[in-house]
Amino acid sequence: MAPEKTVERLCLYRRLLKTALTEGETNIFSHELAELVSGSAAQVRRDLMEVGVTGHSKRGYEVDHLLTEIDKVLDAPHGTRIVLIGVGDLGRAMLRFMKGYHERIKVVGAFDNDEAKIERVVHGFRCKSVTDLEAVIASSGVDVAIISTPADAAQAICDRLVAAGVRGIVNFAPVPLHVPGNVKLERVDIATALEKVACLVRQATVGCNVPEEAND
Amino acid sequence: MAPEKTVERLCLYRRLLKTALTEGETNIFSHELAELVSGSAAQVRRDLMEVGVTGHSKRGYEVDHLLTEIDKVLDAPHGTRIVLIGVGDLGRAMLRFMKGYHERIKVVGAFDNDEAKIERVVHGFRCKSVTDLEAVIASSGVDVAIISTPADAAQAICDRLVAAGVRGIVNFAPVPLHVPGNVKLERVDIATALEKVACLVRQATVGCNVPEEAND
Repeated sequence: MAPEKTVERLCLYRRLLKTALTEGETNIFSHELAELVSGSAAQVRRDLMEVGVTGHSKRGYEVDHLLTEIDKVLDAPHGTRIVLIGVGDLGRAMLRFMKGYHERIKVVGAFDNDEAKIERVVHGFRCKSVTDLEAVIASSGVDVAIISTPADAAQAICDRLVAAGVRGIVNFAPVPLHVPGNVKLERVDIATALEKVACLVRQATVGCNVPEEAND
Repeated sequence: MAPEKTVERLCLYRRLLKTALTEGETNIFSHELAELVSGSAAQVRRDLMEVGVTGHSKRGYEVDHLLTEIDKVLDAPHGTRIVLIGVGDLGRAMLRFMKGYHERIKVVGAFDNDEAKIERVVHGFRCKSVTDLEAVIASSGVDVAIISTPADAAQAICDRLVAAGVRGIVNFAPVPLHVPGNVKLERVDIATALEKVACLVRQATVGCNVPEEAND
């Protein structure tokens, strides 16, 4: 079983390898992949040994072979079935994105509680009422869910997903969620990334900004 | 100057404290904040000492005072001016989100290269042609940019932003970007989060999935 950080890097390598392939590159060296992910060549080689592939000292890695082997490790043979809850701008962005996954990651339901959205087709997916969530999860064997609801709805949806047997959740709502230890949870925090960069830029400009008088 | 990881956690605490305040809570303990961020109470206390605030052993921290002091550390006194490039679903999601920042983070321009979008108002922001990017950055004193373009446009936009003097970039495009060392770059990777969870869920189900025959 590949460690979590390795899985994360393999996902990234795969994306870069696909780009390389479409650009006509047949071979790639570990140091080239390393540069793309701002890592070390040694790290790349260790990660790729995890999928059972070693590079050639003169020719590097064959891109298409490497892709095949990474796919074997990352992808479920019959694809992963997912649901998405919250068809706002962010949900729509994810749906559009997932069209590109074809069979690897299959959206079996996109849900919202807004009557105006239900039955509308968004990027090829028909929006369903969130009241049907449990029925769809049970009938389609859903493993993973994406939560793109507003913050105040996210934990209740999360609890319903866990109770319905979902074992992996990607949370886009700007609030931490609580899940049992056997459920994998990944948070994508769009707010913190922006606030952090804004603060770091300011710190780099003005130097230390912890106010001296604030020692109460 | 607060370290990057501390800044990240302070952003998160602030969000949680605002929620607590709207729910009528006036005081909060370090262990409560720690639980919300899945961290330790000792870590929370260290972080909050960084902003010059120590809690009371019996009453914990006063929420509104703590918020004021965190704001002083995180926010520029006159706000941070930002631009957003790429008004697709993800760009729209960010624009909607940023309406809530009011004066703290000001969007001074949202840009796209699609003629159909230019001059349209999206969540209160008028979309501009990307040909005007440098002019707006120069005239408005822009510090930070959000890139929400497709992958293949991202690096060229990034280079233009850096050349125009932007010193912080949040990258939503599914591709790693390269910036000089003096530019702060934060990547929000919506694709990897989903692929990673899908893989981890499958690994937890089937055990080791590195194919044994793949030792070439």
